[in-house]
This record gives sequence, structure tokens and C-alpha cells, in this order.
Amino acid sequence: MPVVATVSTDFYQVPLPVVLTDSTHGVIPHFELVTVRVEDSDGATGLGYTYAVNSGAEAFAVLVDRYLAPVVTGEDVDRTEHVWQRMWWALHYAGRGGHATSAISAVDIALWDLRARRAGQPLWRFFGGYDPRVPVYAGGIDLDFPVEQLLEQADRFREHGFRAIKMKVGRADWREDVERVRRMREHLGDGFPLMVDANMKWSADQAVKVARALAGFDLVWLEEPVIPDDVAGHVRVLRDGGLPVAAGENLHTLYEFRHVMEAGAVTFPEPDVCNVGGMTVFRKVAALAEAHNLPVTSHGAHDLTVHLMAAAPNRTYMEAHGFGLEAYLAEPMRVEDGVAVAPERPGHGLEFDFDALRPHRIGGTAA
Amino acid sequence: MPVVATVSTDFYQVPLPVVLTDSTHGVIPHFELVTVRVEDSDGATGLGYTYAVNSGAEAFAVLVDRYLAPVVTGEDVDRTEHVWQRMWWALHYAGRGGHATSAISAVDIALWDLRARRAGQPLWRFFGGYDPRVPVYAGGIDLDFPVEQLLEQADRFREHGFRAIKMKVGRADWREDVERVRRMREHLGDGFPLMVDANMKWSADQAVKVARALAGFDLVWLEEPVIPDDVAGHVRVLRDGGLPVAAGENLHTLYEFRHVMEAGAVTFPEPDVCNVGGMTVFRKVAALAEAHNLPVTSHGAHDLTVHLMAAAPNRTYMEAHGFGLEAYLAEPMRVEDGVAVAPERPGHGLEFDFDALRPHRIGGTAA
Ligand SMILES: [Mg+2]
Ligand SMILES: [Mg+2]
Repeated sequence: MPVVATVSTDFYQVPLPVVLTDSTHGVIPHFELVTVRVEDSDGATGLGYTYAVNSGAEAFAVLVDRYLAPVVTGEDVDRTEHVWQRMWWALHYAGRGGHATSAISAVDIALWDLRARRAGQPLWRFFGGYDPRVPVYAGGIDLDFPVEQLLEQADRFREHGFRAIKMKVGRADWREDVERVRRMREHLGDGFPLMVDANMKWSADQAVKVARALAGFDLVWLEEPVIPDDVAGHVRVLRDGGLPVAAGENLHTLYEFRHVMEAGAVTFPEPDVCNVGGMTVFRKVAALAEAHNLPVTSHGAHDLTVHLMAAAPNRTYMEAHGFGLEAYLAEPMRVEDGVAVAPERPGHGLEFDFDALRPHRIGGTAA
Repeated sequence: MPVVATVSTDFYQVPLPVVLTDSTHGVIPHFELVTVRVEDSDGATGLGYTYAVNSGAEAFAVLVDRYLAPVVTGEDVDRTEHVWQRMWWALHYAGRGGHATSAISAVDIALWDLRARRAGQPLWRFFGGYDPRVPVYAGGIDLDFPVEQLLEQADRFREHGFRAIKMKVGRADWREDVERVRRMREHLGDGFPLMVDANMKWSADQAVKVARALAGFDLVWLEEPVIPDDVAGHVRVLRDGGLPVAAGENLHTLYEFRHVMEAGAVTFPEPDVCNVGGMTVFRKVAALAEAHNLPVTSHGAHDLTVHLMAAAPNRTYMEAHGFGLEAYLAEPMRVEDGVAVAPERPGHGLEFDFDALRPHRIGGTAA
């Protein structure tokens, strides 16, 4: 049986083409990226990555290099579940979520890539493919855009094939949010799927007020109205605000997803494969959502996530994230008429342009 | 107003005098320690630390050095609450607990030390001192000790002034646990406070079974019967098992403590100042416990925690941890007749013997 032979990392700070802002992270000049490469005893390889919106990713690389690589090396490559448990317990003290799960995610993604490549299958098939055509929405990071720029961005999204759009809310004056959504709805026309994302800006009471003010705009969902820790607050917003609620990009374990689903705190669970624990946990969250009769959406990393969504019978819109990772990919995902098609290349099929990334490399152990 | 001038770290892997084992972490040959030093614009200093049982601590140092130090530097030293919030949000993405809160803890502890030293007061007084005399128990890490060694250890604890002892449970055969507790109770005599700690070993059903089998031994508490994520399981163990439940060393946020307290999942909340978010969050958890009419106990770091317990009106036994940190402290805490007395030295009063630690230093930024 082939076993894991080497695990290595690269840590990058990648400047964004446009400096972004949202209500939580403020000004975001770059994002942070950690890539993980695994090679097995037969020379087969797999690639994983994880990222941070603004800071913290050097910890991912350190956790992989010093603590996870020794635990994973020598393990049977097919036993992803066993390897996952070993990684979880290796970092459990002071871990149990947080940066540990992002580090675990990157290794887990690389292992699944390796396994599917060995099998000569794209991951979505390897996972028992449901439907390779995945509806997708464009996630704008546009809280500070003047309205004109916001609408122009929407036009560009539509030109690129998107048929659903998410915009940020959470302006200092909530009435500006309502006005911006009104203008966007008017611009897009009735029936065009539109989501809004508050990035944890509000209290439950504020969120209920704004949700009610947005009631007439036929929104698909209101995302992260309050901090993820305030589960009771989510329940209130969902019930009293009258809008479906999406949440999950800041939940880092299967258990946290159980908590919010069981509490009735979320309509659209939204795991991020890069911070929830990789392919292994994303699939469990999707199954948990199915068990709760809920759709599953996603956050970030759409080139990886498309495989997971294509395998999930309860999948709804996948997010196509606004970060500029496309510039560093050999073959970025294409969207046509609102749909992304999971590729037929073996594994996840994603390849970084490591030459283009090199100027932004800060550290890591890959040769 | 003095502001934070510098923040620097040291990262150590400290060999344990005796290799320890528990039901979760397996064999523990060393523990990991990160010390943080802050200096303000007047040259006043403060010292903080955090640790990991077996692995993960290099991430704490990296998070402090690359991400927290820039956020803290230049801030008003008295505004610990403001600084804490800045640190929390700086590491929120992929954080929200986990290794991020340990990194935050170390900086927060150092800042409180600096503030109290500037004020010329010990921390317990600075916090509004309730009672400097804190009941304390000895936490044995002794799952694999033969019974004779377990009882000898208990004798040593008593010689060192302890009047309450905790032992590990969670042997492969649960009947051995019952027998070991029986022997210990017989050895200590009736009325001697005895706790047991399962380190998350069991399912809720297993825990209920063992708890009932231990019913006759007058235990103060059963600690971590199940994984911290299984809040409903804790509730079952507490109600159906018939023993008070302690938990919290693996909870990393105020919100997690709210969840378990509100659910009725815990009798003895047990925060660790080094992984829950520092002095700032430990005090909030103690207040939350008070609001739930619960006592507060503690995990680890007793030289720091004694100040927090001495300031908490609802404090019960503090843990004196089994790690060998004493060998590296200038003036280790003394226990007399079951009580530790919070020191009158300014700040927390703890000083590391950095010369003794130096051979175990792996990294960090301190000169
Ligand atoms: Mg979002
Ligand atoms: Mg314990």
C-alpha cells in the first residue's frame, strides 16, 4: 500500500488587484495563502491549500510543518479518515477548531487530490458524483463601493456568466444598506437571485430591523447577520427578521454546524472547505444539512468546492469568491449561464502558477 | 499615557521530569511553552505565557510575532479590553478560538502583569481581591501508574500540603477505573476531597455507566467525561450519571462557556487562563459562572490563576497542575494545609528562570 512520503508547504502573502473592504476585516490589501504538497511512496502527488482573509496563515504553515507532517508521514494514503483523526488529536490541545482546522484542511485536501488522481477520476466522481453542473453566484466584496461602482460590478458579473450575485451590507447607516439593495434590485430586475452579507456587523435586534426593511427585495438570504458565536441571535434573526439566514464561513467544526442546524439558526449552511477541516468535514457538513432538510452552500475556494457541491444532492448556489486567486491558477473555473461545471481532470484539477506566486512567497518548506 | 513599545516571544519544548500519559494525549515526553514579554514606552515590563500539552505551541509564537505584536504596539497599556478586541478581530478569520486564543492569552497576561506592576499591586488586589487564600488540589497525570505508584503519589501530594487530589480515569477496561478509585478512596479516607478526570475518553453512555459505578466514592467531580463538543452528552452524564461534572480546559471562548452553562452541561466550569483568552476572559467566565450560580475552578498555570481565583467570590478548588514548570520558576507557589496564598509581589509575581529554560529554546523573537 502506498504511504505518505513527504508533506511540504509554501506560505504567501498575495496582494489583491483591488484593495477590498468589508464590515469586519476593514481594509484588506492582500490575502494569505498556504499551499501543501504531498507525495506518496510511489511518487504520486496531491495539492491542497488554505487561506486567510487578512492574517493568521503563517500559523497554518507552522502547524503543518512541525506538527502534522510527522503525524501524516508513513500513513496509508487511502485512509483519509484515519489520517484526519490523527491530525485532529495531534492539534487538539488549544486547537479544536480555529487555525488547527485550516492546517488540517490543507493536508486533507491534498490527500483527497492524490487519491483521486491515483484513481484517474475527478474528485466529484470519486465522491459519487451527483451532478457536475453547479449553480454559482458571484460574491462581491463591495461594502465601500459607490452605488455606480456596485452596479457596474454587477454588470461585469453578468458578462462573466453569473446569474446570481451577493453584495455586502453593514454600512454605518443601515438606511444606506436598504437604499443600495433597492438600487441593486432595480438594476438586476425582478427574479434575479440576490443575496446580502453583513459579515457579523449587527446585534440580533439591529439585524431584525434591517432584515424587515429589506423584506420587499426578494433576497435569497441574509448572510452572517451577527457573530457566529451568537446562535440564539441567529435564531431570532431568522424567525423575527423574516429572511433566510446563511452562515458558516466562520464555523470550523462539524460540531459547530450541528449546533446551529439543531438550534434552527441557519437556512443555508455555508462551510468553507479550507477552514472547516477539508474535504472530509465539508462532506459531513453537507450530509448533516441533508439530514436537517437544508440546502448546502459554500464559502470560498470554488475551484475545490465545485467537486464537493457536484457530489451533494442538497447543494444550492456555490460561492465564487472575490479574491484574486484566478491570476495564479493554470485553468480557472469557468461560469456559463449561472453554472460552473466540475472538471473531468483527475483530482481537483487545480494547478497553481507557482512561478507567478513566487514573488509573494514568505516561507514554507517546499523545495 | 504609556503605550506598548515592544512585544517579544520565546518558544520552548520543555522535557518533563517523568514521561506522562493520559487517555487522550497518549505519551507526553515534553510540554511546549511560549513566553511573551511586553515593554511600554516608560520601560515598564510585563510577562505572560501560554503552553500546549504536547504540540501546537510554535503557532502561538508565530501568531504573536507576526500578527498580534503589530496590532498591540502603540496601544495605551491601560486599555486591556480595547487591546483584547483588536487581537481577537486581527485573528478572527480562521480563528474564533483555538490557537488564536492561546496567543491572545499570553499577550493579555503580560499586559495585566505590566499594569499591576505599574500600580505596585499584586494582580489579585488589582482585580478587587476577594480572598487571597485559595483552596487548591493536586492534579495527577497518572492513568498508567500502577496502583502502588498512584497511592505513593497521593502521599507525596499530602506531604506537599495538598488536601484535595484529582486522579485520571479512562483505562481500557472501565472496571480498573472503579478499582483504582476504590483503592484511592480507601487510602485517603472518607471526607478527603477526590476528583476524577476522564480526559474526554468516553461516549455519554459509557460515562453514565462508569459514573454510576463510582457513585459510592463521594467524588467532588467527574471531569471531561466526553468530548467538549458534545454538550448534550455532558447534560446526560450530569443528570443520569449522578456525579457533578467539571469541564472547560478545552473550551476557548466566553461563548463556549455560555453554551455549556446555559445548557446545564457543567457543574464546575474550569477555564485555563492560558488558552481561554487570558486574564480578561477568565474573569468574564468566572462572572458568567457566578451568574449561573456555579463555582469556578481552573485548569493549569496555577501561578497565574491563583490571582484570578483570589478575586472571584465563587471560586472553588484551583488546580495545581502536574507539569514540571516549577523547576523553571524563581519562586514557585507554596501550598499549606490545602491552601495557596496569592502573593503580595506586584503583578502576578511569577518569574521564569530563563537561564534554566535556555537549553530548551526552539525559537521566538526575544533578544
Ligand atoms: Mg460571507
Ligand atoms: Mg482535565
